[in-house]
Amino acid sequence: MLESLLSPNTVAVIGASRSPGKVGHAVVANLLASGFQGTIVPVNPQATEVLGVPCYPSLDAYGKPVDLAVIVVPPRAVMEALESAIRVGVKAVVVITAGFKEVGPEGAALEKALVERCKAAGVRLMGPNCLGVMNIHHRMNATFAAALPPAGPISVISQSGALCVAILDWAVKERLGLSKVLSIGNKADLNEADFLEALAQDKETRVVVSYLENITDGNRFLQVAEAAASIKPVIVLKVGITQAGARAASSHTGSLAGADMAYGAAFKRAGVIRAEHFEELFDYARAFAAQPLPRGNRVVVITNAGGPGIMAADAAETCGLRMVPPSDPIRQRLREVLPAAASVGNPVDVIGDADPDRYMKAFELIQEDETIDAIIVLVTPQNMTRPTDLARRLIETHRGVKPVLAAFMGGQEVAAAQELLVSAGIPNYPSPERAVAALKAMVDYSAWRNRPPRVVARIAVNRRRVNRVLQWHVRSGTAQVGEVEAKEILRAYDFNVLPGQLARTADEAVEVAERIGYPVVLKISSPDIIHKSDFGGVRINLATAEQVRDAFDLMMVRIQRRAPRARVRGAYVEKMGPRGREVILGMTRDPNFGPLLMFGLGGIFVEVMKDVTFYLAPITQDEAMQMLKSTRSYALLQGARGQEPVDLDAIASALQRISQLATDYPQIQELDINPFVVGPVGMRPYVADARMTLSGIDSSRHEQVAH
Amino acid sequence: MLESLLSPNTVAVIGASRSPGKVGHAVVANLLASGFQGTIVPVNPQATEVLGVPCYPSLDAYGKPVDLAVIVVPPRAVMEALESAIRVGVKAVVVITAGFKEVGPEGAALEKALVERCKAAGVRLMGPNCLGVMNIHHRMNATFAAALPPAGPISVISQSGALCVAILDWAVKERLGLSKVLSIGNKADLNEADFLEALAQDKETRVVVSYLENITDGNRFLQVAEAAASIKPVIVLKVGITQAGARAASSHTGSLAGADMAYGAAFKRAGVIRAEHFEELFDYARAFAAQPLPRGNRVVVITNAGGPGIMAADAAETCGLRMVPPSDPIRQRLREVLPAAASVGNPVDVIGDADPDRYMKAFELIQEDETIDAIIVLVTPQNMTRPTDLARRLIETHRGVKPVLAAFMGGQEVAAAQELLVSAGIPNYPSPERAVAALKAMVDYSAWRNRPPRVVARIAVNRRRVNRVLQWHVRSGTAQVGEVEAKEILRAYDFNVLPGQLARTADEAVEVAERIGYPVVLKISSPDIIHKSDFGGVRINLATAEQVRDAFDLMMVRIQRRAPRARVRGAYVEKMGPRGREVILGMTRDPNFGPLLMFGLGGIFVEVMKDVTFYLAPITQDEAMQMLKSTRSYALLQGARGQEPVDLDAIASALQRISQLATDYPQIQELDINPFVVGPVGMRPYVADARMTLSGIDSSRHEQVAH
Repeated sequence: MLESLLSPNTVAVIGASRSPGKVGHAVVANLLASGFQGTIVPVNPQATEVLGVPCYPSLDAYGKPVDLAVIVVPPRAVMEALESAIRVGVKAVVVITAGFKEVGPEGAALEKALVERCKAAGVRLMGPNCLGVMNIHHRMNATFAAALPPAGPISVISQSGALCVAILDWAVKERLGLSKVLSIGNKADLNEADFLEALAQDKETRVVVSYLENITDGNRFLQVAEAAASIKPVIVLKVGITQAGARAASSHTGSLAGADMAYGAAFKRAGVIRAEHFEELFDYARAFAAQPLPRGNRVVVITNAGGPGIMAADAAETCGLRMVPPSDPIRQRLREVLPAAASVGNPVDVIGDADPDRYMKAFELIQEDETIDAIIVLVTPQNMTRPTDLARRLIETHRGVKPVLAAFMGGQEVAAAQELLVSAGIPNYPSPERAVAALKAMVDYSAWRNRPPRVVARIAVNRRRVNRVLQWHVRSGTAQVGEVEAKEILRAYDFNVLPGQLARTADEAVEVAERIGYPVVLKISSPDIIHKSDFGGVRINLATAEQVRDAFDLMMVRIQRRAPRARVRGAYVEKMGPRGREVILGMTRDPNFGPLLMFGLGGIFVEVMKDVTFYLAPITQDEAMQMLKSTRSYALLQGARGQEPVDLDAIASALQRISQLATDYPQIQELDINPFVVGPVGMRPYVADARMTLSGIDSSRHEQVAH
Repeated sequence: MLESLLSPNTVAVIGASRSPGKVGHAVVANLLASGFQGTIVPVNPQATEVLGVPCYPSLDAYGKPVDLAVIVVPPRAVMEALESAIRVGVKAVVVITAGFKEVGPEGAALEKALVERCKAAGVRLMGPNCLGVMNIHHRMNATFAAALPPAGPISVISQSGALCVAILDWAVKERLGLSKVLSIGNKADLNEADFLEALAQDKETRVVVSYLENITDGNRFLQVAEAAASIKPVIVLKVGITQAGARAASSHTGSLAGADMAYGAAFKRAGVIRAEHFEELFDYARAFAAQPLPRGNRVVVITNAGGPGIMAADAAETCGLRMVPPSDPIRQRLREVLPAAASVGNPVDVIGDADPDRYMKAFELIQEDETIDAIIVLVTPQNMTRPTDLARRLIETHRGVKPVLAAFMGGQEVAAAQELLVSAGIPNYPSPERAVAALKAMVDYSAWRNRPPRVVARIAVNRRRVNRVLQWHVRSGTAQVGEVEAKEILRAYDFNVLPGQLARTADEAVEVAERIGYPVVLKISSPDIIHKSDFGGVRINLATAEQVRDAFDLMMVRIQRRAPRARVRGAYVEKMGPRGREVILGMTRDPNFGPLLMFGLGGIFVEVMKDVTFYLAPITQDEAMQMLKSTRSYALLQGARGQEPVDLDAIASALQRISQLATDYPQIQELDINPFVVGPVGMRPYVADARMTLSGIDSSRHEQVAH
């Protein structure tokens, strides 16, 4: 799709320069140095050749068709350069020049004009403010970074050009094989999703590594990333996790859902492998680049030293990999081939005097063991180790069925071995812990690839009822949907709501209570009071007419004292529900990724422990269950410490229905069901309290009503 | 103290060999290669010289005094070698030979005999089963590892010889300056504490790095480590964190306190810097080796690229460092010297085209800024960067008042700069995150160094009362101290216990209730029932004589049905206490480090969220407060979300009194106060339930009673 950009035949460099040190010189020099096989067309009115390549005063003067134009002229001249490129039928441009959106409104206007011109001409634009594009398999370095790593299976998308330079320089030193290196700059036109889409189809790319500071279009990214991740691993380092913090929001869900939660949920959904730190990007990429995916999470560590073995075991158990011992028959054979002092558990310790032969005997047996999914080989350079031989043997013996990751620890003694491993595609790490972390990423990705098909269940709902409530809010300019109306909406989505009715007077309250039966709960109803309990606006367990009347009158008096400006509609009289476990279900709409569902065990667990999980809607039954399981308090719901287990399916079903509601009604901006009371299987859970916030409400209407 | 071992004049190698590949050859070769200036005395009956050094058939044949003997003969010959060394007045021996405790009981016996012989002769023993000893400043490599790193300020204590080999090999490649390298092997005599004590006094050691699988004597280690850490940083990687798991224990405290918790508490107390992963050991060591300690946690990041700057900021905020902007006057001056596009917040972004001059202007200003405690310099190799120059300038400009840590990212472009930095003692990291982690270790250590003096308060207690209770348990062979007696003990330590008394019959229960006043609580009293509620053994809020009588009879019937073999003494009738927040206070005795105190918010927080903290007794007021603060649920105690704040001092005081009790009575093995009920300041908190376990109880007495 981005053929002209990634594999052009003719590349024009508009702003090519004869002066070393200038970007326009570096791009031509780098194209030449990379051995570019197509035509290079330097453009500069002041030169007849650049580095021996004939130079043209303008692209018009060149006159022949050009696939890609790399533009390095000053910002004010970029539009003209673009026009000239369009005239010779260019299909893509890379604007390296900086000084656009990143410097202020004037630059932003210039950038916008560029994009519009490109759109009109059907030309795709990379940048501006970027390093350029590199396709190593195509022998094309159209960037101003000179470092040219070997060709390999890893492609890089980076929102930071400077970081690209560091990565390229480092990749050369580490002999890391790269495919495409894409510096996406200001992402005025082409963004991470476009390139991810292209790399998903690119045969020379086996792993995509991406450094991102933001994502331009969350929904498109989700789609593209999920499709790409279904073909090959996509590893992303998303920075800026702490800056965003929690948003200003009136709901619990909203205040707990920072932007980073949404990114996390999006990556989880799309199968994107998230790197938390810079080094993980390539630690993981190396593992994925040439090793098969593990079928499960059972790993055996083979080592010639106890210490590193324990480090690996500590790391594996901490991150959830399973250090299971080899199967019985394999253990027995290990016993036969290893010396008595060796350990045939896990780690398999071939002990310090192991030569490559002994290592390989253990390795072959573990390869054979069908109860083991992955192997980590740890090596310290002892007298008999012969690390280089060992690496060679390891490469020969590796059948390529299970992933093998190595940590040959040391310096000069293991350097040759490390190089052999790297060039043979067995990733080598400087520490056991980093090997384990990479394997964990593989295990998680493999599980995602083998996930069950996503089937989002939908139930029949009464949309008319919902529409009626929403229309009232639009007409009255009321963005806050209070308890009574929120419950009305939820009822339409098959939520169990207890019998209840709004009462405007104490008499009415008693009347309602008599009808629905004691005991009842009384709750203040006011569009201006969101956290009812904070204002003494909730009274429970009222068992007689007298209690109801007293509670009503007291509540009205107190509310008037504590919140004199609140518009009070009365009190909601509701049947007191059975006891159960209180959970919180919520939804908030992330500006980038849309509806974000939240689950947490109610009360203190949410507010103090922040023990909540997020997932993007729409959600499947399986994903809803995963949400429950990934809270720390899940054990409680299951019935830990003699607690009665609750109906987990009922919670999962509720989450699915909120998911459906959020999908059906984009105007619902936030939603809290807090608490949702759930009991053992058989007890129908119910919504004890709920509220929503609507977007797109014209609050001037509300002002009119209020004054 | 270990002068003869670390800086001997004469070193004998018993078992020296002429055959390359043999350990006895390697040791002599390495002594020679390291340029050892003293006398080398190879001993081997079959040789007259080894590598040109005159060899003796025995040490007796040599006849002159020897400081250190390195023994590499087979295990069965080691004792004889030791005897010969003792005869020539050796002061220390290193037994490299393996095949002792680690291979089984026979080896263990041999090892024990060696130690006894050494003790009798006043000789110190390193090993057996170790790599040997290296003192690079003394130009002595008395190990069988050939790699010889440059002399420097970092000393290494390693329980794994194989890991030592890898570290040495790696240190050579990384030009990491080392001082002593001590492979402690089986630690038959000299252990980590002995070497730590020596290194604390060693002028050539500025940082101690240690790899440990266990600690031989917890109390001695604590003392020595605290003393050492008060002089220089001690960094420890303690592996085996997951294996130990929770101990079999009947108390909550005991079951939550895995061995790793005890290690964590010990390191915290002693000011030991804990490395979680292998790479952190030297990441941290490099930072400590040549940089001054930061006075606080305010760090400024200077960068020429946005991406790495955000990575550093993310990492800093996540780990609790403060990314504060420079002070106003400094910001203003930064504005003056930096281009308009630069950012003068934090990170200070000098932008991509910064040359060393511009970097240095920013760096000097931040150095001047008294509101900033530490500086991290990030560099990506751009066109104008000139990394090598920049490194040189950075080294020149660094005043040595604040710590400066760097991450020059890249490969060949920054290699020379990295080498310059390393040799000048400015630590350089491959990623921003690793620089931040190292700085965090420095900040924590600095805070520990500046901690207030430890003053452990003691209150006057009624020991007679405690002794009486304990004596009864000894006499009756009862290891479990039930509620009634545990409360009796706690009362002696000024704990508030509610009025109550054991009742053997329903009539007696009513009698007690009438006396102490309703409402009351009834609790089963049986040495065989530890978790009373699990057996229906607790009834609360009994308000009338009838309720008490019914509850008593029902309880007795049910207990007999559910636990027919339990010896039931009756029910404890206790005044119902006021409501409050339930916390759990506990103590368990770690086999290595002694009494380990626990604090947690009660119930679910402890049982499901495992939100507890541990600290070693004796504890100060300040440390007790730290325990409260380091739980996630601390916010609740402070009064989050409209909760009434509780009397934190009262909890801290209770922890101190448990600390005193645990110190006074070593026979108390475990203690749970669960719950300890605490209210707002003014309400006296009380022990709602408690139990203890005693050690050293002769349970045969108990059996006699039971049958």
